[in-house]
Amino acid sequence: MHKPSKTIGEDAVSNSKPVTVLVNPTVSEAEKAVKEAVSQHKTLLIVGECQVYYQGRAKSKLQLGERIMIVKDDGSLLVHRSVGYEPVNWQPPGCVFHTKAKEDTLEIHAVRQKPAESVRVFFGKIYLVSVLKLLDSGEFSLYSSEEDMQKAILSQPSLLEEGFKPISFEKKVEPGFVDVYGVDKSGRLVVVEIKRKTAGKGAALQLARYIDAIRGKADREVRGILAAPSIAKDTQRMLVTLGLEFKHLDPRKCAEVLRRSETKNLSEFFEET
Amino acid sequence: MHKPSKTIGEDAVSNSKPVTVLVNPTVSEAEKAVKEAVSQHKTLLIVGECQVYYQGRAKSKLQLGERIMIVKDDGSLLVHRSVGYEPVNWQPPGCVFHTKAKEDTLEIHAVRQKPAESVRVFFGKIYLVSVLKLLDSGEFSLYSSEEDMQKAILSQPSLLEEGFKPISFEKKVEPGFVDVYGVDKSGRLVVVEIKRKTAGKGAALQLARYIDAIRGKADREVRGILAAPSIAKDTQRMLVTLGLEFKHLDPRKCAEVLRRSETKNLSEFFEET
Repeated sequence: MHKPSKTIGEDAVSNSKPVTVLVNPTVSEAEKAVKEAVSQHKTLLIVGECQVYYQGRAKSKLQLGERIMIVKDDGSLLVHRSVGYEPVNWQPPGCVFHTKAKEDTLEIHAVRQKPAESVRVFFGKIYLVSVLKLLDSGEFSLYSSEEDMQKAILSQPSLLEEGFKPISFEKKVEPGFVDVYGVDKSGRLVVVEIKRKTAGKGAALQLARYIDAIRGKADREVRGILAAPSIAKDTQRMLVTLGLEFKHLDPRKCAEVLRRSETKNLSEFFEET
Repeated sequence: MHKPSKTIGEDAVSNSKPVTVLVNPTVSEAEKAVKEAVSQHKTLLIVGECQVYYQGRAKSKLQLGERIMIVKDDGSLLVHRSVGYEPVNWQPPGCVFHTKAKEDTLEIHAVRQKPAESVRVFFGKIYLVSVLKLLDSGEFSLYSSEEDMQKAILSQPSLLEEGFKPISFEKKVEPGFVDVYGVDKSGRLVVVEIKRKTAGKGAALQLARYIDAIRGKADREVRGILAAPSIAKDTQRMLVTLGLEFKHLDPRKCAEVLRRSETKNLSEFFEET
């Protein structure tokens, strides 16, 4: 016998945020809430016992266990276990959802077309379902140091461009020190000047001086790249005139690359011991 | 005037999963639930309006908005917005939590020691708090193709080892084709043989044949690496005898590297257009 679920509908909390909360709902009650969330582009939280199948870039199967599933307004999906900061299964934004209640099981199927990928979540037991419209226009701002942006490029050179190979950093080149120095995929020398904020004329001229000093000695073509979160409008034209390039470098991505590489190294260490 | 929260305590659902659910709780009710979750290593879900401050590898600030926060059994923390599959803020497992209710604000402070990092979440409004003990021993298994593991190494060569630079793949070397061929950070040639399952003697001998064929022609030292999720016990000894190496290569990590690079490229495309 199924115990009636405790439902707190929107009416019950009309003075506060409208929150749909179902505790231990039936499969068909949960189905209704899921369909409402998906069709109205609301955020959906489900906690329950589930199995998860992924098919796409690879194939994966997650056996039965109790987990948290989140479907966001933009059609992205996350399945989280009770440990680990990374989701065990996920789909990026833009999924199409198919929800089906079949006997005692709720199936949620998140499909993506390009590339073709599919995640199927089968809930046998459902403990909690919540549907909410989250309002969030808060700005996220991040302050990273040029040193850390440099470390991030050294740790993952594709942040600058595919095929880039760093050779050295803080290389002494009169009139100063080059932030990162390397070779691109065509074998050309690359000199990188990093700015943590909008790059202006000063940065462009500094880079031009390094390039001049190196061109005199190098036996091959030399490229100069100004890497920064953004570039001042007047500087863009100056860069073109000087034969230099601008690369958008996101300080947040740099910080995440460093954090993840540190955290992964730690978890690999634990795996292997 | 605060509206009394609807509380569904553990007693109310004694025949089902014990689930603590608070809808629109007061700050002090929420504080009690958070402290219970953290001290008993349970999973905590909070939905509410918050600000988030991160300090560590960089500094970040997230302005007021409605979000989902998850604290897991292992002391990891996630803050999710209503869009995007990646968390806006996160801390890996092992955090120490400090919870404080101050007037109308609930502060949750997640501290990590090495490296020193801290995330502070300030909730002004709380819509939902849930505390659960998730039981999950389900195995996660992933099947990836050797071709995709190869693509992953080409896309992120540090999966093999730091400083590795691929030169080519599917390179014809009698008696067949080398999976990945490159140079290590010391300039030695590296021949990589990939297996998607436990590598056995056959794989080791195959690699040895390639190495033999290349050593005859190369002007420098040649290394042979067998990259696979695991290696058969008897094969480990054979590898040593043959002067070859084994590298643990996780098919799941390979699949994630490919998915994330595809997804990121997509989101970067949207950012720039």
